[in-house]
Amino acid sequence: MSTMDTPSLPNAIRFLAIDAILRAGEGHQGVPLGMAEVATALFTRHLKFNSGEPTWPDRDRFVLSNGHGSMLLYALLYLTGYERVGLEQIRSFRELGAHCAGHPEYDPASGIEVTTGPLGQGIANACGMAIAEAYLAAKFGSGIVDHYTYAFVGDGCLQEGIGQEMISLAGHLQLGKLILCWDDNRITDDGSTALSISEDVGERFRVAGWHVQEVDGHDVDAVSAALTLARKDARPSMIACRTVIGRGIARLEGQRGGHSGRLFPSDADEARTRLDWAHAEFEVPPAVLDAWRAAGRRGETEYLQWQARVDALPEADRAEFERIQAGVLPDDWREVLHAYRRRAIESAEAVPGIMISADINDALTRCLPERIVGCADLEAPTGHKRQLQAFTAHDRAGGYVHCGVREHLMGAMANGMAAHGGVIPLAVTYLAFSDYERPAMRMAALMGLPVKFVFSHDSIGVGKNGPTHQPVEILASLRAMPNMLVMRPADAVEAAECWELALEHRTGPSALVFARQALPPVRREHDERNLCRSGAYVLAEAEGGPRRVTLLASGSEVTVALEARVRLQAAGVAAAVVSMPCWEQFDLQDAAYRAAVLGPGTVRVAVEAAVRFGWDRYLGERGGFVGMNGFGASGPADALFEHFGITAKHVVAEAMRLINLG
Amino acid sequence: MSTMDTPSLPNAIRFLAIDAILRAGEGHQGVPLGMAEVATALFTRHLKFNSGEPTWPDRDRFVLSNGHGSMLLYALLYLTGYERVGLEQIRSFRELGAHCAGHPEYDPASGIEVTTGPLGQGIANACGMAIAEAYLAAKFGSGIVDHYTYAFVGDGCLQEGIGQEMISLAGHLQLGKLILCWDDNRITDDGSTALSISEDVGERFRVAGWHVQEVDGHDVDAVSAALTLARKDARPSMIACRTVIGRGIARLEGQRGGHSGRLFPSDADEARTRLDWAHAEFEVPPAVLDAWRAAGRRGETEYLQWQARVDALPEADRAEFERIQAGVLPDDWREVLHAYRRRAIESAEAVPGIMISADINDALTRCLPERIVGCADLEAPTGHKRQLQAFTAHDRAGGYVHCGVREHLMGAMANGMAAHGGVIPLAVTYLAFSDYERPAMRMAALMGLPVKFVFSHDSIGVGKNGPTHQPVEILASLRAMPNMLVMRPADAVEAAECWELALEHRTGPSALVFARQALPPVRREHDERNLCRSGAYVLAEAEGGPRRVTLLASGSEVTVALEARVRLQAAGVAAAVVSMPCWEQFDLQDAAYRAAVLGPGTVRVAVEAAVRFGWDRYLGERGGFVGMNGFGASGPADALFEHFGITAKHVVAEAMRLINLG
Repeated sequence: MSTMDTPSLPNAIRFLAIDAILRAGEGHQGVPLGMAEVATALFTRHLKFNSGEPTWPDRDRFVLSNGHGSMLLYALLYLTGYERVGLEQIRSFRELGAHCAGHPEYDPASGIEVTTGPLGQGIANACGMAIAEAYLAAKFGSGIVDHYTYAFVGDGCLQEGIGQEMISLAGHLQLGKLILCWDDNRITDDGSTALSISEDVGERFRVAGWHVQEVDGHDVDAVSAALTLARKDARPSMIACRTVIGRGIARLEGQRGGHSGRLFPSDADEARTRLDWAHAEFEVPPAVLDAWRAAGRRGETEYLQWQARVDALPEADRAEFERIQAGVLPDDWREVLHAYRRRAIESAEAVPGIMISADINDALTRCLPERIVGCADLEAPTGHKRQLQAFTAHDRAGGYVHCGVREHLMGAMANGMAAHGGVIPLAVTYLAFSDYERPAMRMAALMGLPVKFVFSHDSIGVGKNGPTHQPVEILASLRAMPNMLVMRPADAVEAAECWELALEHRTGPSALVFARQALPPVRREHDERNLCRSGAYVLAEAEGGPRRVTLLASGSEVTVALEARVRLQAAGVAAAVVSMPCWEQFDLQDAAYRAAVLGPGTVRVAVEAAVRFGWDRYLGERGGFVGMNGFGASGPADALFEHFGITAKHVVAEAMRLINLG
Repeated sequence: MSTMDTPSLPNAIRFLAIDAILRAGEGHQGVPLGMAEVATALFTRHLKFNSGEPTWPDRDRFVLSNGHGSMLLYALLYLTGYERVGLEQIRSFRELGAHCAGHPEYDPASGIEVTTGPLGQGIANACGMAIAEAYLAAKFGSGIVDHYTYAFVGDGCLQEGIGQEMISLAGHLQLGKLILCWDDNRITDDGSTALSISEDVGERFRVAGWHVQEVDGHDVDAVSAALTLARKDARPSMIACRTVIGRGIARLEGQRGGHSGRLFPSDADEARTRLDWAHAEFEVPPAVLDAWRAAGRRGETEYLQWQARVDALPEADRAEFERIQAGVLPDDWREVLHAYRRRAIESAEAVPGIMISADINDALTRCLPERIVGCADLEAPTGHKRQLQAFTAHDRAGGYVHCGVREHLMGAMANGMAAHGGVIPLAVTYLAFSDYERPAMRMAALMGLPVKFVFSHDSIGVGKNGPTHQPVEILASLRAMPNMLVMRPADAVEAAECWELALEHRTGPSALVFARQALPPVRREHDERNLCRSGAYVLAEAEGGPRRVTLLASGSEVTVALEARVRLQAAGVAAAVVSMPCWEQFDLQDAAYRAAVLGPGTVRVAVEAAVRFGWDRYLGERGGFVGMNGFGASGPADALFEHFGITAKHVVAEAMRLINLG
């Protein structure tokens, strides 16, 4: 570094950003211009990485939580030599198909650790990464896992509730290897931060147990010194980097327009003169590029030493480490679930839905040590702790995170853990509160992260706690989400099958939805196949003649459908019951299978303790629906099913009405 | 009060709660047992209310944010003499149809100011109420509007991000008449609060500019003294009331089970002995009930004096005050919108969707002074400020609240404003971020509050900001919500019609969804009728023969459908375009109208830049869909519509394919 004058390094970031944003016609220059020195300090002097090995498991993680400043990240990746982020990618910023998208899009092989943009998500992801790191370090030792997680963060991320949840929990857990650099530029999209916040942000962190420093964010040495102290401190660290938004373009410096106001060629010209940058568009002078590339290779030796330590591990440990890093499941996990299914068939007990999931997870504990369960202050009613110890400030080996009543953080931390790798995160709460988590679920689906979102209390079966706690529209809203499996098993056997699907599913999240109330068995015979794999299947075929009625149901209402079928059969109407635990899987089946299940020409009635929205896809124009028309009510669960008419009697009546209509 | 020994008053609350929870078989005793003295101090010495006039507009508002402690509220309402909450209601706690539901359900005439239960919502509602109060006080003077807003709050509400957002903004806005009583019992559902939080909660409030006190929450006099100081202080106040959860039942005091662990008759017996309460189940001794009833009538004189001041207002002021309190719109509002529509037809300009909404709101500014607009740091790109001044710590007359990047708080504050009455709240952000607000939207729908949720940037039309900012599944997830109108107008005329529907709609929220990009006019002739009132209507009928194809579309894709129709007509295929701005309104129409619009027997193709989920209801089994199959991408908007095939060409191709299938 010593041969380079310091301004040249950050200015290389600035002009790549200015040129790319000008070329794209839009973008957010505030972050790359304002945080160029902070980024230079971090990437050239502290961050442990090797641009030649982007997915090195023990690399430091870097999250740009203020993702609108994406050109900062792309400039850094290009400058430090990530193969996938060449100059042609920088030049195609924000064009369709470019790596350099408007906001960073998850692609670890390119150096993009998570998708960011919706504010607050990135720092919550980073918190999850820091937990994953501490957990894995406790398992494998600091020779194998020992890295920091850094995040850049703007005012918006810290105003968001999820950001505040993160501050509180990271302080509580004393995640000492989590380091935030706050772009303290005092400007948001609306103008001065004074429009919407008065508190001393540093003090807010201090109250939560953070190590807080304030530095001149345009002084590389000062930022670097603060990073050194931050790394040494046992507390999570926040470095308030006082910066000038839009630094380099006089017209925009410290102004509202510095954030994302339109740039003009004259701005670039003026900045080139002002910063003494006599280089063409997108041109980085060789000496500067060399210095940056050297920074990108700083970690090579450390990487090789780390690899040697991994190679020197006892064979079983090395294999286990490599297995979990690859996201490969152990040999015996499937047999655990099959054995559970056999036992469930034998015992034929009615067990509360969510406790079935808890039992299954208990059975998996031994063979899946990489599982980390987060739960939002509902340990007792959701049961997924039992065999796990708590992850705490003093015990990093625990696989259960008491998230507090912070659902949003919980979901986004799970995303961060999944993006980190080496762990399988679960996030557990009531289905009614999934809305609090939903922005994080969307990010999991968008990134294709294999997070397991587990929900209990899935319908009016919640009973007396009333409509605030009774989801009616939430199944539909989850099913509307692209790239997510939504599964609502009917009994213990289906639950184990759905867990098998969820664990297999590596390209996106799964939502596993369970009843609070007991689910009587609907599957009576063991089947080696996983029937839920088809999404929907004929659970009970019509008898005594060709099928005239097809009853479709999921979860606790499969029992209602089975009872209705008995009544219809008794009345001489040949009726089948189709269990539909997972629409997304069903939609993947071929047309012949789907038709065979749905029974073309039969009268179809769906029964689900939720709104009809979405069911018409399977019902066709003549179909009927027995379910909810609006929100629930407070009362005993049995009384509610009766009150809202979600009963076998009503299903039969609806089927007969449709038959009589012809 | 002086003749009553202090313990009798809170103990009346305790035993009503114990008896009701025992009778119901479940409930949360933690709050009523722990906060009985705090409630006694507030309700007998400070709260301005008149149980005989529950909806007195200038009453102090009381919100039980820790809504699981509902029996505390019901006991207070019964004891202070609310007519609708008699002893028979207390006895039917948690039974189907009872006023005393599991969680408090919005019913101002019964003294229940908002529905609470999902944590953090209540204190955010309270913040909105305090803003509404300050705004109305600035308009009408402190003789007419001058009340406090009190909220009881537990640890969960304060852990939730929305709670933290509230602390930050209420401090910033210096809402001095907002007073929280924190049930500092150090226990949550999981056990000790130390499992999930370490920070000094009082300090966190102080950092945000709050007045903070700590008191013994079982000392009525101490709590009362703190309330006196809180009322005097110009800052918002938080009183940390150190309490013992489950106070009165030795087995549960200070224990995890104190929260909602099962109660047994022996607990009630033991508590009766311990607290010297020699009264039967549900029996409140006359002297105690008299003292409580007297507290419930404390406000009678003040109420009459207030009414006299209202009566003494200049006639126009009084009429205006009574109009907005009744939620009645002014005489001329509809004409403003009609005039806007006529002008839009004449100018025939293509205007960015969200700016159409901004223009409409500008036009309404004069005639709807009760409108308060909240926006989450997107003033410039959403445009709804313009003619409004900001509501600040120093200027309470401003109708625009800079909410900061705090969408969840924004939505819940809007609910609180609507529940307060006298104002019409709007909450404005991008559609992609509606997920952050969704838990509050659900509460608005559940309560039936007329909040206007306004969204911009409604599709891939967002362009280069990419998939994080491009909603694809969110229209479906909003349409799945019961009791909410979701409207996506196609042009300026439809926008004005939808705003007319939204302002008319008093029994639930409206979501108004606008494109970022310019919407060319699709309506060319003025119609005195509001065509959007039917939810869907034939915008362009088939010509040259009976209709063979029906194209369904909403918002920006209506233009695509119109272009496809031209091509189909040119190819000799008689095709109609149906604009569908509001599914909920369409579903309310009679079968004949719906059939006439949808064209039975015609080939139907829907086009919407969103997922298909939900559309099958209108498409039938033969229908086609042109839209999104998954998340969007970063690129120019035009390129994205082409890339994802949301074009007239594809609509025509899909229609022809279906025609050829027969």
